[in-house]
Amino acid sequence: MTGEHPKGDRPHEFELIKRFFAPLASDPGSLGLTDDATVYTPHDGHELVLTKDMLAADVHFFADDPPEAIAAKALRVNLSDLAAKGAVPTAYLLGLGLPDDWSEDWLERFCSGLSGDQSAFNVVLVGGDTIRSGHGLQISVTAVGEVPTGKTVRRNGARAGDVLYVTGTIGDAAAGLKARLDHGFAKRMGLSDSQHRHILDRYLLPQPKVKLAGTIRDFASASMDISDGLLADAGHLAKASGIDLLLDLAAIPLSSALRALSKADEAIFHACLNGGDDYEILATVPADKAQAFEVAAKAIGCPVTRIGTVQAIKGEKGADRQAAVQLPTVHLQGPTGPIALNQFPGFRHF
Amino acid sequence: MTGEHPKGDRPHEFELIKRFFAPLASDPGSLGLTDDATVYTPHDGHELVLTKDMLAADVHFFADDPPEAIAAKALRVNLSDLAAKGAVPTAYLLGLGLPDDWSEDWLERFCSGLSGDQSAFNVVLVGGDTIRSGHGLQISVTAVGEVPTGKTVRRNGARAGDVLYVTGTIGDAAAGLKARLDHGFAKRMGLSDSQHRHILDRYLLPQPKVKLAGTIRDFASASMDISDGLLADAGHLAKASGIDLLLDLAAIPLSSALRALSKADEAIFHACLNGGDDYEILATVPADKAQAFEVAAKAIGCPVTRIGTVQAIKGEKGADRQAAVQLPTVHLQGPTGPIALNQFPGFRHF
Repeated sequence: MTGEHPKGDRPHEFELIKRFFAPLASDPGSLGLTDDATVYTPHDGHELVLTKDMLAADVHFFADDPPEAIAAKALRVNLSDLAAKGAVPTAYLLGLGLPDDWSEDWLERFCSGLSGDQSAFNVVLVGGDTIRSGHGLQISVTAVGEVPTGKTVRRNGARAGDVLYVTGTIGDAAAGLKARLDHGFAKRMGLSDSQHRHILDRYLLPQPKVKLAGTIRDFASASMDISDGLLADAGHLAKASGIDLLLDLAAIPLSSALRALSKADEAIFHACLNGGDDYEILATVPADKAQAFEVAAKAIGCPVTRIGTVQAIKGEKGADRQAAVQLPTVHLQGPTGPIALNQFPGFRHF
Repeated sequence: MTGEHPKGDRPHEFELIKRFFAPLASDPGSLGLTDDATVYTPHDGHELVLTKDMLAADVHFFADDPPEAIAAKALRVNLSDLAAKGAVPTAYLLGLGLPDDWSEDWLERFCSGLSGDQSAFNVVLVGGDTIRSGHGLQISVTAVGEVPTGKTVRRNGARAGDVLYVTGTIGDAAAGLKARLDHGFAKRMGLSDSQHRHILDRYLLPQPKVKLAGTIRDFASASMDISDGLLADAGHLAKASGIDLLLDLAAIPLSSALRALSKADEAIFHACLNGGDDYEILATVPADKAQAFEVAAKAIGCPVTRIGTVQAIKGEKGADRQAAVQLPTVHLQGPTGPIALNQFPGFRHF
């Protein structure tokens, strides 16, 4: 393609593929990345799940983050989508738009981050493209997963009476971003050094719940990953399933850092709770399977927390009372009664 | 994800998906783009071919090109890869990194370009991601095609005695880029208005040979699309197959614009011949099938031209004579004898 080659004496695209990317492409279908395209044959009786997330420097990560962490984040945000669908990740394609000032050392570290995650999550690079972005670093990963045919878990299967669950803890990454942008944040909020490190780590490096995929497939009626904020994403699940969700604020699992934040500044705590970048799983499970789901999740080292229930649509009180159609809604129960969601920064009606 | 939402009063990502992209996603597996991922089930007895090309504003296209053409180019460069593999395109995922100054009118025209090409090439949008790029427009398309299992045509199947073919005409897009960058170019080269328009069109809008996919599958021993320049890509095919290619300069199919260029300025003509962005197919066919291949290609309205032959490796004369190992090589026969490839700008040894 026109002008796609990096400038100067640095490796040409073909050398770059051979040196940096071919070692990551151990699947025979990818032919060592020497062909126009890759051949992919799903296992018998399986359907594919495809997802694609793009990340841009200084929008989704900081350009001076460790290259290993940037690579891992780009891959993991996609693996999180697959896990929420009950899919086992198998392969990915990598689109890399390099800034003009890329260096071989940087790229080596980036590929080392990919290599580590390929081992950790049992996926392999099968294709992609490397270009000059003309500006900052741009990354586009397309991830491929497999599910036994017909077993992909969608957002639209939640039914009244189901129990609502979440993995991990919520709000840490959003707090980490605040701490990253504002160096006085942790001290002002009274966070300890280890709490400070915890939230920074959670922003830098998502921990997708890949190992929960099979359990999600076995038990969940609906599932999605939390990337836009717990309340916003609960809204998306409610809308797709045509149901209401009743969440209990006190039940939402928090790290010690977020518990400290909730005492220091309620507005900031609320902003973090719906801040996004959690990459946890939000899932509904029929009530008669709930106990078994909790046990199975704990057994594989990925405990889940019951944070609410699914209800038939009853609409919102107040302004919506006059609406002719009652829309799927998220209700949040606080310690002293219902909390209006519009007080959560970032919450949008849908 | 952090800060991914476009600024100001313009539509939020979810409205944007609903309004602009969901109408392009008619496949049931994509669920109207309302889920984390898309479900894809290949047809029985077929393997998938996956390809991914990225394009950046002012690297691979001009930011002020018509949005319909930018969209079509981003899709077509991927369809060209699939066609060269003998694959029928079925679906694509679109990653779109928008600049801060995007407008609804621009996006509407971009999607109209996609919609037109979806009809023309019988493919459908199944997923993707829209982000703020932080800079100029960035596009990443992952295209999916299908081939009966085991029938994908690779670059590595050419054998001594095969005939080398190319589709369409070569060098037009590279000349078009020169004309686009230098407004005096066409006049200086003595091109007519229609020749000028032809090369500009060929740069703006590739014409991937999608309808040749079945014929490639039926006849070709090796195949690839020409995106880096005819001679450079012939080199890639030679290397992958472990053979030499003997090309006849006089046989390379040229448009009337390129014939005019060849008379006006031999150096510029040579640069265009290996300039890239052709998106034609380079294929080898066993000699006993060559006649039938030509007839079949012509019958579907996609004529091919015989431009050379495949030979066993014999190495290069000159400096390479001392090399212990003889490498796959492209030999170019000119009107008065062999032409050294290093006089072609953009040609790189491999």
